[in-house]
Amino acid sequence: MSSSDIFIGETIGTAVLILLGGGVCAAVTLKRSKAFNAGWVAITFGWGFGVLTGAYIAAKSGANLNPAVTLGLAIDGTVKWVDVPLYIGSQLLGAIIGATLVWVAYYGHFKAHLTDPEIVGRDTGQEGMVDRAAAPAAGPVLGIFSTGPEIRNVVQNLATEIIATTVLVLAILTQGQTKGLGVSGTGVLMTAFVVVGIGLSLGGPTGYAINPARDLGPRIAHALLPMPNKGGSDWGYAWIPVVGPLLGGALAAGIHRLAF
Amino acid sequence: MSSSDIFIGETIGTAVLILLGGGVCAAVTLKRSKAFNAGWVAITFGWGFGVLTGAYIAAKSGANLNPAVTLGLAIDGTVKWVDVPLYIGSQLLGAIIGATLVWVAYYGHFKAHLTDPEIVGRDTGQEGMVDRAAAPAAGPVLGIFSTGPEIRNVVQNLATEIIATTVLVLAILTQGQTKGLGVSGTGVLMTAFVVVGIGLSLGGPTGYAINPARDLGPRIAHALLPMPNKGGSDWGYAWIPVVGPLLGGALAAGIHRLAF
Amino acid sequence: MSSSDIFIGETIGTAVLILLGGGVCAAVTLKRSKAFNAGWVAITFGWGFGVLTGAYIAAKSGANLNPAVTLGLAIDGTVKWVDVPLYIGSQLLGAIIGATLVWVAYYGHFKAHLTDPEIVGRDTGQEGMVDRAAAPAAGPVLGIFSTGPEIRNVVQNLATEIIATTVLVLAILTQGQTKGLGVSGTGVLMTAFVVVGIGLSLGGPTGYAINPARDLGPRIAHALLPMPNKGGSDWGYAWIPVVGPLLGGALAAGIHRLAF
Amino acid sequence: MSSSDIFIGETIGTAVLILLGGGVCAAVTLKRSKAFNAGWVAITFGWGFGVLTGAYIAAKSGANLNPAVTLGLAIDGTVKWVDVPLYIGSQLLGAIIGATLVWVAYYGHFKAHLTDPEIVGRDTGQEGMVDRAAAPAAGPVLGIFSTGPEIRNVVQNLATEIIATTVLVLAILTQGQTKGLGVSGTGVLMTAFVVVGIGLSLGGPTGYAINPARDLGPRIAHALLPMPNKGGSDWGYAWIPVVGPLLGGALAAGIHRLAF
Repeated sequence: MSSSDIFIGETIGTAVLILLGGGVCAAVTLKRSKAFNAGWVAITFGWGFGVLTGAYIAAKSGANLNPAVTLGLAIDGTVKWVDVPLYIGSQLLGAIIGATLVWVAYYGHFKAHLTDPEIVGRDTGQEGMVDRAAAPAAGPVLGIFSTGPEIRNVVQNLATEIIATTVLVLAILTQGQTKGLGVSGTGVLMTAFVVVGIGLSLGGPTGYAINPARDLGPRIAHALLPMPNKGGSDWGYAWIPVVGPLLGGALAAGIHRLAF
Repeated sequence: MSSSDIFIGETIGTAVLILLGGGVCAAVTLKRSKAFNAGWVAITFGWGFGVLTGAYIAAKSGANLNPAVTLGLAIDGTVKWVDVPLYIGSQLLGAIIGATLVWVAYYGHFKAHLTDPEIVGRDTGQEGMVDRAAAPAAGPVLGIFSTGPEIRNVVQNLATEIIATTVLVLAILTQGQTKGLGVSGTGVLMTAFVVVGIGLSLGGPTGYAINPARDLGPRIAHALLPMPNKGGSDWGYAWIPVVGPLLGGALAAGIHRLAF
Repeated sequence: MSSSDIFIGETIGTAVLILLGGGVCAAVTLKRSKAFNAGWVAITFGWGFGVLTGAYIAAKSGANLNPAVTLGLAIDGTVKWVDVPLYIGSQLLGAIIGATLVWVAYYGHFKAHLTDPEIVGRDTGQEGMVDRAAAPAAGPVLGIFSTGPEIRNVVQNLATEIIATTVLVLAILTQGQTKGLGVSGTGVLMTAFVVVGIGLSLGGPTGYAINPARDLGPRIAHALLPMPNKGGSDWGYAWIPVVGPLLGGALAAGIHRLAF
Repeated sequence: MSSSDIFIGETIGTAVLILLGGGVCAAVTLKRSKAFNAGWVAITFGWGFGVLTGAYIAAKSGANLNPAVTLGLAIDGTVKWVDVPLYIGSQLLGAIIGATLVWVAYYGHFKAHLTDPEIVGRDTGQEGMVDRAAAPAAGPVLGIFSTGPEIRNVVQNLATEIIATTVLVLAILTQGQTKGLGVSGTGVLMTAFVVVGIGLSLGGPTGYAINPARDLGPRIAHALLPMPNKGGSDWGYAWIPVVGPLLGGALAAGIHRLAF
């Protein structure tokens, strides 16, 4: 796999993943969106089909789209260590591009939402974040970009992200054992549904980053993009959805090496 | 591929796509429908499985069903330029037929809906359109036929349609790179889920036309069909879901040629 | 294909289809069910996965499970005319068994529902039927067994059933043209999603019988099973979901012969 | 298949199944979860994709993950009787691990939920259980771990579990008859959707255990884990979701031997 294949596949693929994943959060969060308040099922399938579409487009780079996956595959021997920085850099770049495209696609809605007197008057502190399903318009727009915990606790939040990412990466590492999968179309579909399942089941506490690029890239975009009343980018939490998923990816690779 | 294959596949396939896609909008919009107010998840899966069913039936023509896809494939070299007018003409014809079939299948419900004093008394102006998910019975029935923006702004609406269509066409153009896809059954399934994902994630601002025939054909049908109190066909907006998707299709082909 | 293969596959497969399809209607209709009021998306996916499970189990008979499909395949030459009576008889028997199993699985809930003073006090006339999605407990339990129109009109209701069934049977007849389908696992999956799509999009007016056995078998079961306060079986409507789907199946076969 | 393959595949696979399945129940039940009150569609797809992910990871042991499936396969001759105790023991161990991981992933939410004065003040008796869809926060947290009937009746609850499990195991036993399935990726996907379908359609009365390990393992975890105000573990009901599914698995194997 050439460097150019990796760069193109991972950058464009991750951009599409975040465009669709961040997009569904915008779609259900922003007032005057046709999908306003469409619920948790919409969010989880939106992210899952974002993975499907991004992975589909990024076939030429092996469709990692996630530093935790790249780390797991490197420990497992599928991805070369020398390629890891390029993979992760491309993923982060793609995620920033994707989040910016969400902002472009929903520009008018961000503007209308952030100047709505009902919303602006509210507390824009970080505690509590945007409860996207139950009351989508109740907080700042950071939840469209990055994850935040419903109950803030370092150990608890790390544990949830580690567990969820371990499931994801272990499923990817064992993919080759099932007849007719590998990096085929059905394998991409299966992985997409695994992501929907993780979202439905383990997304409740922290919003399931399970991917450092998915969280950090859009958070950078949130910090840089000019949006009045956007609130803070919650940098105090930012390391958890980076470190947690990386530990989960490594743990999955360890389990895979020992047990499979 | 013969002209007859193209004509039959694209006309019937697009008719089925619009019958199911417009059908789900009718199902959730019209009062006294069993699916009344079933929400955004229902709408997006309805359109996605409309793509699946139409593409399935139109295998013999390559199942484009969308002028933006045909344009992308022509730029990419898969579809011959000389066949493009027949593809697009057939798609437009199919879309008009499909929208008419929605009207036939829901004839009694259209009639009941459009003579409901609660609905007729309301403003039938174009601004605001039918908010199909949140308050399906709040406006005219044009939303069952064609798309309309929640916030009307030429640049913004064009941008959203371009971005969404670029994702769709890029996913289709890169399909062959994934093992076991191509125009196989799994490829059709993947494309259907890509369309669900685009709807969930990027449908909020404009209702995701992402297909000139999908929007223009039913708009023509709306203008022609005899429905009292149907309101205007919003021709002022009609060029955006034609031009935006075509630009998106061309952009995707450009990205594909340059990067893949 | 032997007679015994046909009898076993079609009877057991259709019983499973109706057990799951009728089951989801019971699940969302009956008070004190965990799925009470779960909505139209639940109903349509429940029926779709009922088709998937039944078709999966009935592979040995070709998994018709529907007289309209059998008729279409007979006109098309895939099923022998001499086998048609056995197919249809087995499907009808399976549908009666399946509806009875729904009654057994939900026996306690039927009893609790039908003796609930809130429900019993209401009108149990046929007009209006059970509006299963919007107000599941608002009428008699016939809607768990058979379909009924929201707006009663012979021509309109027939038209809707014909259109919906034509889409279904045409999709099945063209299945072989898509690479990697046929009666494979992916083909079953595609057909299941076609059924979900038809339900989402064309189920609003009549509840999408699209299958004479699916409607008539459970209606017979409804008439025979001992349930106090069950209301009438609406025999005046019973011919429409038999004749409409058969006409749709024949129409699809005609379109297939002429155009494909 | 070596003993080590069975032990590793079944233990890890079942742990993942229960982590995701129990996880979705936690996600919709616990206040302050982002998925709070997300509904029955979320629950059934969460369990289905839990099966998909667990089965995917457990390919090396044949992915039974369920004593009723193992019993059915043993009667059918696919699994050796001598391996049955190891299969079932590993499944039970995995289920206890999975339920404990749910508790870890949602630790902060359990704590917040169980000290909420609105919840603690309520009756924590076993009758009625947690109505997870309609009023998720209305009872004790046992519903996150194990199933419970909405209407308690030994014969009725057994019948529902037997019927639902018979469908599941029969679908698995007949899988090999469909072209392109077997234990391939598509076969796993189909089985996952069968489980979603059973949940949607037959989950209303008892919450569809359809798997003795899925119910008993988490119930043991519920009894052992230190949670104040957790309420009882309802041991009086515990035998039904063990015996019912085993009878269903045996019945399916009998039907399969006789009829297929």
